[in-house]
Amino acid sequence: MPGFFMFVQPQYLQFDAPLALQSGASIRAYTLAYETYGQLNATKSNAVLICHALNASHHVAGVYAGQAKSEGWWHTMIGPGKPVDTDTYFVIGVNNLGSCFGSTGPMHQNPDTSEVYGASFPVVTVEDWVNAQARLMDALGIQTLAAVMGGSLGGMQALSWTLQYPSRVRHAVVVASAPNLTAENIAFNEVARRAIATDPDFHGGNFYQHGTVPKRGLRIARMVGHITYLSDDVMNEKFGRELREGVDLKYSTQEVEFQIESYLRHQGDKFAEYFDANTYLLITRALDYFDPARAFGGDLSKALARATAKFLLVSFSTDWRFAPARSHEIAKALLDNHRELSYAEINAPHGHDAFLLEDARYMGVVRSYFESKVSAEMATA
Amino acid sequence: MPGFFMFVQPQYLQFDAPLALQSGASIRAYTLAYETYGQLNATKSNAVLICHALNASHHVAGVYAGQAKSEGWWHTMIGPGKPVDTDTYFVIGVNNLGSCFGSTGPMHQNPDTSEVYGASFPVVTVEDWVNAQARLMDALGIQTLAAVMGGSLGGMQALSWTLQYPSRVRHAVVVASAPNLTAENIAFNEVARRAIATDPDFHGGNFYQHGTVPKRGLRIARMVGHITYLSDDVMNEKFGRELREGVDLKYSTQEVEFQIESYLRHQGDKFAEYFDANTYLLITRALDYFDPARAFGGDLSKALARATAKFLLVSFSTDWRFAPARSHEIAKALLDNHRELSYAEINAPHGHDAFLLEDARYMGVVRSYFESKVSAEMATA
Repeated sequence: MPGFFMFVQPQYLQFDAPLALQSGASIRAYTLAYETYGQLNATKSNAVLICHALNASHHVAGVYAGQAKSEGWWHTMIGPGKPVDTDTYFVIGVNNLGSCFGSTGPMHQNPDTSEVYGASFPVVTVEDWVNAQARLMDALGIQTLAAVMGGSLGGMQALSWTLQYPSRVRHAVVVASAPNLTAENIAFNEVARRAIATDPDFHGGNFYQHGTVPKRGLRIARMVGHITYLSDDVMNEKFGRELREGVDLKYSTQEVEFQIESYLRHQGDKFAEYFDANTYLLITRALDYFDPARAFGGDLSKALARATAKFLLVSFSTDWRFAPARSHEIAKALLDNHRELSYAEINAPHGHDAFLLEDARYMGVVRSYFESKVSAEMATA
Repeated sequence: MPGFFMFVQPQYLQFDAPLALQSGASIRAYTLAYETYGQLNATKSNAVLICHALNASHHVAGVYAGQAKSEGWWHTMIGPGKPVDTDTYFVIGVNNLGSCFGSTGPMHQNPDTSEVYGASFPVVTVEDWVNAQARLMDALGIQTLAAVMGGSLGGMQALSWTLQYPSRVRHAVVVASAPNLTAENIAFNEVARRAIATDPDFHGGNFYQHGTVPKRGLRIARMVGHITYLSDDVMNEKFGRELREGVDLKYSTQEVEFQIESYLRHQGDKFAEYFDANTYLLITRALDYFDPARAFGGDLSKALARATAKFLLVSFSTDWRFAPARSHEIAKALLDNHRELSYAEINAPHGHDAFLLEDARYMGVVRSYFESKVSAEMATA
């Protein structure tokens, strides 16, 4: 629908009761920022929860009135007439605990001490986020989700929903995700964390009180991350060995010489302006820790025996961060448990980032899954 | 020969005449550190030059008397009875200009100003290094090399020798190398450089005068580098998701939790103790700049038309830094010019690092190339 905009606004809900966390700590009097799109139907059977990845938020779809370029991060996927159609579904986006876009995070006050959390913000896991999201669903009066959906780290949350609340999820849509991180994935996260934590402006995580921001570390973290989000192919196609200016080399080690350097520096600079350093540590750690098979001696099939939801898994051919083989692991474990499963491997050049981009085949797969499978369950709910 | 050690010692040669550099600058009164192994024969036809990669040196083979663990970086490949047999060949290792192991570099005094070079050390390229190496060969009385050999960035120097001094090289052994860097390769270099250059202890490259060392940046640079040297497979096999201590998670964002984190931090710490930050910038830039096809509109076949040497190319199946496909590009360009070429693709799990490791098939390929091809040319020289 060209010219049509869905105007949305964030909502905030405070939860006073303590939430027990996986670490043994707990958090109380916390706020979750969320948005909803579409209408909850009378039987409350059309709710779809969207879980976000590292640097995204509750602002999944639509636009903010009066704000240019304020499209939600998955607006190509979700909205009126989109693959996840908000004319049919009541879609909820929620900002995770510890993030920096409105939900309670390290930059907020600890109600027990009246001091800013900073480094003392409790370590949160995928399982903790899912528990917090379940409480939000309770508050919204939603017992059962038609679907829970996410890409990358968001896909891990969708998967974890099917294990923590099997009876509350009919469908899980897990895109460009993995059942845990590899050593290489952890290694890249650790480089990013060390860049932040060793920035003198980080002050052990209590930089708010010092009036500083560890921008150097955040820039490096984002640059490293960006490399892993793109495929080698798409980087060569977009940037190759093109020089930033003209055709003559400058012969400089510190100035920008190649286009790819300029692009990465720009991404790093932008990110350092808006993203919280403690949040970066927390979210990459949640990625590291996620490993549902761990409690089952590494046996993912045993771990997924609890899941009763039906699954759509999507992977992308050039994603080397969470390669198709990682989705195959989830698929195999589900099949070992005789679960119903659809799987699409999209031939796309964009690497891990493909899950955020508008690819006709990818959009088509999700659209047809919601039209045929998710809506069918909804009708019988 | 178990129990046999080849004792060696570094030598130093000063070059007073200015060396014109690709950037337009020049450098004078510089020193090259080098080592030699074996004996130059009467016809001076048995010289093999070894070119080093990013963090290696002239100390290629043998050990230093009285120093434990002082084996040269390619001692598995080079020495008496080794694949490059110093009972037959006169092997030369040379530390490149701008490095930090004895040749003139940014930590030394500029004879024109009597000040430490620091950030003002001229940018050096692969081509400049080859010119400096050629002068060293002149000084050693060696007109023609039986072979020039290197891995990774060292392989680029070997390739460049065949283009800059075609008549002075009979064989080029180019291992785990590439005809230029991809955008992704440059991107990883740029992350490392930014980590160093934005470390407050770097002082724009003039940290020597400030009595500081940008160790934070060097650590990050090394951690990033290390990830790209290893394959995903070997990281999973060596470290996987193993915890550093015990079986219980600590739930900490700054402490070490996984073995892979501990390994990377250790590598970073070690490196920051001995490697020069300006050298890191210079050498990664030399990698970025290397691109013999550039002057030929990107046509590598045209660029390699000058080469008359015979080639051995070796690549490793799991090397994702300089993948086998990059060696295929060199092979194709040589074949387009009807050059004599041997190529081995070694099925090894270790990623880029494989070129430094002792793999029986790899060692066998190099040994047989030297025994059959290199020695045959030598006999007729």
